[in-house]
Amino acid sequence: MSYAADVLNSAHLELHGGGDAELRRPFDPTAHDLDASFRLTRFADLKGRGCKVPQDVLSKLVSALQQDYSAQDQEPQFLNVAIPRIGIGLDCSVIPLRHGGLCLVQTTDFFYPIVDDPYMMGKIACANVLSDLYAMGVTDCDNMLMLLAVSTKMTEKERDVVIPLIMRGFKDSALEAGTTVTGGQSVVNPWCTIGGVASTICQPNEYIVPDNAVVGDVLVLTKPLGTQVAVNAHQWIDQPERWNRIKLVVSEEDVRKAYHRAMNSMSRLNRVAARLMHKYNAHGATDITGFGLLGHAQTLAAHQKKDVSFVIHNLPVIAKMAAVAKACGNMFQLLQGHSAETSGGLLICLPREQAAAYCKDIEKQEGYQAWIIGIVEKGNKTARIIDKPRVIEVPAKD
Amino acid sequence: MSYAADVLNSAHLELHGGGDAELRRPFDPTAHDLDASFRLTRFADLKGRGCKVPQDVLSKLVSALQQDYSAQDQEPQFLNVAIPRIGIGLDCSVIPLRHGGLCLVQTTDFFYPIVDDPYMMGKIACANVLSDLYAMGVTDCDNMLMLLAVSTKMTEKERDVVIPLIMRGFKDSALEAGTTVTGGQSVVNPWCTIGGVASTICQPNEYIVPDNAVVGDVLVLTKPLGTQVAVNAHQWIDQPERWNRIKLVVSEEDVRKAYHRAMNSMSRLNRVAARLMHKYNAHGATDITGFGLLGHAQTLAAHQKKDVSFVIHNLPVIAKMAAVAKACGNMFQLLQGHSAETSGGLLICLPREQAAAYCKDIEKQEGYQAWIIGIVEKGNKTARIIDKPRVIEVPAKD
Repeated sequence: MSYAADVLNSAHLELHGGGDAELRRPFDPTAHDLDASFRLTRFADLKGRGCKVPQDVLSKLVSALQQDYSAQDQEPQFLNVAIPRIGIGLDCSVIPLRHGGLCLVQTTDFFYPIVDDPYMMGKIACANVLSDLYAMGVTDCDNMLMLLAVSTKMTEKERDVVIPLIMRGFKDSALEAGTTVTGGQSVVNPWCTIGGVASTICQPNEYIVPDNAVVGDVLVLTKPLGTQVAVNAHQWIDQPERWNRIKLVVSEEDVRKAYHRAMNSMSRLNRVAARLMHKYNAHGATDITGFGLLGHAQTLAAHQKKDVSFVIHNLPVIAKMAAVAKACGNMFQLLQGHSAETSGGLLICLPREQAAAYCKDIEKQEGYQAWIIGIVEKGNKTARIIDKPRVIEVPAKD
Repeated sequence: MSYAADVLNSAHLELHGGGDAELRRPFDPTAHDLDASFRLTRFADLKGRGCKVPQDVLSKLVSALQQDYSAQDQEPQFLNVAIPRIGIGLDCSVIPLRHGGLCLVQTTDFFYPIVDDPYMMGKIACANVLSDLYAMGVTDCDNMLMLLAVSTKMTEKERDVVIPLIMRGFKDSALEAGTTVTGGQSVVNPWCTIGGVASTICQPNEYIVPDNAVVGDVLVLTKPLGTQVAVNAHQWIDQPERWNRIKLVVSEEDVRKAYHRAMNSMSRLNRVAARLMHKYNAHGATDITGFGLLGHAQTLAAHQKKDVSFVIHNLPVIAKMAAVAKACGNMFQLLQGHSAETSGGLLICLPREQAAAYCKDIEKQEGYQAWIIGIVEKGNKTARIIDKPRVIEVPAKD
């Protein structure tokens, strides 16, 4: 490990300065002696979770390994109780340990810059990694590692400004989550890359295996869709040719508001959402990231024990971004459920009678809305969006 | 997490086929329907651990964070015993857990292709990540995650051949180490990237904090140096201009042998070396990777509790690679201790009276030599190589 940084470490630290202030004020390169044209997002040709190997390709690559081995798989036993190893397609690995009944719950993620503010980019990257733990109902992270690639195209000056800001954002988000960054790896690479590893050691009752949906459950989503559309639209403000495609449906002010709402949303932890999953007896959840709402809903549906299907009726979308997506034709596939999200919300199966209370509670605690977006029906473990879903316009917070 | 692959999982699997056979036979692209000119190492402009952010730059970037926080650092207490958080510059993070006396020992690493055989590249990447655990005396890994970036420049065909081979090599190495790969992340990126995350949950007596060197100890190295020189020289066989610089000191046959020795060495686990650290009361260790022998020796020296210095007298080097390095002038700085290694040996501080027995035992168990390369003197926590170190030529195994 190259910088196992206990310098990044301090369990009892107050969040100070930076955080909220920097959220409100847009990143100004010139305030850091960088050229006014500096844009972090230009240090990669792909953005955010759009960088993933496509879901079908990945299945093919991984399945090439599966055939040899599946026959030999065995469920490990601990204290004579089978603890399932949890894996493919779900948000975390869950590994039974040698130590009485404990499990290691672990996840990793990394991707490319999606916003131009390095501090916010660090926060988003950290929130995005943690989100996989939260999707399993795990609320406490024991350790974070940071994975960082510095772009070969950055000047020394750019690097010296940007990388510490990213690190600080990542670390502040970890502190907000009650955990610490103790190390990581950093390399140079053509594209700037940011990510991490989140690990927790816990009792089996601390996580929720996401396979217990039953007919009659409802589906709740805890953050609006449209982050990818918003960050793209924001970049197009500087690109007249692109801007012309959307300027009839949206103003520059709308786009700036949507961009800030997206940054705010992506940097928000799904931790309260995870904690409330226990209180309201969630039957399972996943977080919405690179494969879009429908991609992740389908994966979750495929893992259910009962013969159920997920039907999605409502799409909460950052205000105006549905119109932008429509104006771009087939590009985002937002309303089809395929637009990639970064650090998206949790999609949670809740007992019907608990869902409204869940949404009310999360709004009370955090000041952010959650939405009932669909229902669980009898079916063959698939997910779909109805023909004409209702789009819920989600305004900027302030 | 994108492919939490329990398909990659199978705790009770025998190593079968592939492994040894593929080690002996060079990778033939045409046997996989790829063009004869296919070279995995061309999918990145930097190789192996040469990709790291320079040590001094990294210190500067990380230290920018340190100043704010160091005052608030506190050592966590568990059962009223302070468990130090271990971090910066060492090989693993060690994190005290909420669960009675247990610690999470964790490390991550990723880098670029260093050899052209995808299966061997996977094995090397896995051995390299695990090596950080072994350097701390941890012999059992509870979980591995795989980090993979598929090059944007690979054709679909190349991708479909190469990625499953890399995955299989990584997985076979994990199995050899008695652990399993349960998930990871894969993205597309200009350069092909391979790495992982290794985690163990253990009692404090299962790891060795590397800070107990005393005057009179000796330094043992468990693998020869020169892996970077060997993989470069091997690529130069196809590049007449480069080859001309070294052909007076080395034959093509010498280089092929050195390359195979290097592959063999890099894919070998430091696990027995770690196990014997306990038996022979090691005072601390590190593994030799991107910062070269001297870089890592200096970091280890800086972390000692006593006022000691490390003095290195002997340099075991893969046969002929010292001559190649000399013929290349200042390029590798091999004899100065700065040549990057990938998945290098452990550098171990052992009590003087135990070192010979340690070396004998490792050779008996594994069939590979280890070398006493230096001594621990009174000093100011630095490390150096003497003026004219003795170069020990380490021949290919077969």
